[in-house]
Amino acid sequence: MTPPDAHRPPAALARPPALRAGDRVAVLSVSSPAPAAQLAIGLDVLRFAGLDPVVYPSATDRGSMRRYLAGDDRMRAADLRSALTDPGIAGVIFATGGSGAQRTLEAMDWDGIAGLPPKVLAGYSDVTAVLEAVAGKLGWASLLSPMVVSSGAAIHYSFASMLRTLMHPERATEIRYPAATPLAGGAARGVTLGGNLTLLTSSLGTDTSRPARGGILLVEEENEQDYRLDRMLTQLRRSGYLDGVAGIVAGTFTGCGEPAAVEEILAERLGGLGVPMIAWANVGHGGYFQTFPVGVAAELDADAATLRLLEPPLLPAPEALGG
Amino acid sequence: MTPPDAHRPPAALARPPALRAGDRVAVLSVSSPAPAAQLAIGLDVLRFAGLDPVVYPSATDRGSMRRYLAGDDRMRAADLRSALTDPGIAGVIFATGGSGAQRTLEAMDWDGIAGLPPKVLAGYSDVTAVLEAVAGKLGWASLLSPMVVSSGAAIHYSFASMLRTLMHPERATEIRYPAATPLAGGAARGVTLGGNLTLLTSSLGTDTSRPARGGILLVEEENEQDYRLDRMLTQLRRSGYLDGVAGIVAGTFTGCGEPAAVEEILAERLGGLGVPMIAWANVGHGGYFQTFPVGVAAELDADAATLRLLEPPLLPAPEALGG
Repeated sequence: MTPPDAHRPPAALARPPALRAGDRVAVLSVSSPAPAAQLAIGLDVLRFAGLDPVVYPSATDRGSMRRYLAGDDRMRAADLRSALTDPGIAGVIFATGGSGAQRTLEAMDWDGIAGLPPKVLAGYSDVTAVLEAVAGKLGWASLLSPMVVSSGAAIHYSFASMLRTLMHPERATEIRYPAATPLAGGAARGVTLGGNLTLLTSSLGTDTSRPARGGILLVEEENEQDYRLDRMLTQLRRSGYLDGVAGIVAGTFTGCGEPAAVEEILAERLGGLGVPMIAWANVGHGGYFQTFPVGVAAELDADAATLRLLEPPLLPAPEALGG
Repeated sequence: MTPPDAHRPPAALARPPALRAGDRVAVLSVSSPAPAAQLAIGLDVLRFAGLDPVVYPSATDRGSMRRYLAGDDRMRAADLRSALTDPGIAGVIFATGGSGAQRTLEAMDWDGIAGLPPKVLAGYSDVTAVLEAVAGKLGWASLLSPMVVSSGAAIHYSFASMLRTLMHPERATEIRYPAATPLAGGAARGVTLGGNLTLLTSSLGTDTSRPARGGILLVEEENEQDYRLDRMLTQLRRSGYLDGVAGIVAGTFTGCGEPAAVEEILAERLGGLGVPMIAWANVGHGGYFQTFPVGVAAELDADAATLRLLEPPLLPAPEALGG
């Protein structure tokens, strides 16, 4: 017999407070080394916005253990734990992605963190795995957003969207995706989740994977061939990850081949789920990136290509000292 | 309390009979389309060995649904089911690999097959997923081996090894790996399993994944970068797939970067398991390929770089009619 709550959608996650000018934010890497020059530029952008970035050792390691890893697993996990437990740190904006987040999770000590007040974490790509773990282990909402090291012609757009969501979340609840097209019409409510397709599949079978039941699922990818997209979506299907998903937002699939071919694979592998779905939302790699909050109750309207958050993605910032 | 048999190694799987001259063998694809000219050459090689290849529709489909898929899922699954259930077919030698095996498994109807006499299946690469499923769903041993479409300077060597194992299994129990080096010394007994690293990880979380506990695990790969090897091995670690593995045979890692870097990643990600391990066994993509039986009790001697099967990988062929 199916237990009575087996099909109940998950509740929204605990929302951390917004950031405000003067807040100290941790900049660290759970993944690959951050290029120094780009890091310096991104730090200045955070400072221009009034934030006070605190640079952790993993953000400046040049690949001391292996070329694609910032520091060793212990350093990255210690930086993350320190940022989450230090009461003087208001949030975490990841330095960069790359590879190594699952190694960091393997080394991570979560003990005691779930009892602390939530703080915001912002990143994407390889960081998908950490946001997923934070949702599952701590029950915290977070942001799929650009990171300190970013590039591209539209990076001002991407940073502006991230900073609005981080610092003025009450203005970030109505999200329009002008480039998106519906692959399956209709509207659906659910709690947002997801991120990079490779990372979502690379956590399947582990204790940090968090199935999509009841959720509005974001998937995006970069530089993966058609048959790999197909294989990953097939693994999500076969593993039960997609069972009961409420709606799907397919973001950017940059460098993944012809858009028509990508769209055909998305429609064929996900269409059978019978839920509202849009493609080409501007979330993810390769261009102008609208921050996508994770763990927030939302309504996807596929026909209008909009995502309406039912509440602001972050709580109001506490009153400034002496404010 | 740990149940008393939680750490008992798995039993060897049911061994199918060897093939003999005159046997009809199914040639089909569960994956990508097979190039026609190479298929024809491979079929002739099987005929030279005295076998009678029966070509199924999936082996000649040119990508009618999608360029990287032989036929559609239903065709591939129907071909596989037909070959396994037809009493006039003695075994299956897969036409080619590529991509699509997990889709085939999703469409596959296993009903009733487990009650039939086992027959041998031979293939590798994408077919890893099917051999894993056959082991888990049916309890049958099989062969990681070249396929009908193969190429390379050493293909005569690879085919000769496969045909010896298929037709004279009693002569295929002492396997030496002349190019291999021990990464961790010692000897271990277990039941063989494994195959292509991407495919083993791509089945994690699904009902056809079969953990390595008690096993001698073969892993090999082609054309994957260092950080991807790392991520896949990390997923095998984090998912519990490697818990209780008895020994590891790392095969070829062709096009995966500098051998020293590959070896370092294998040693670092797998060394902590504390089991005998060799690298560069000639099993897998990229050259001369010794057939690796799956599901057979074996002893790995890492110092000597040998794998000794404790029994022949296939049962003796039944007496020929009128023989």
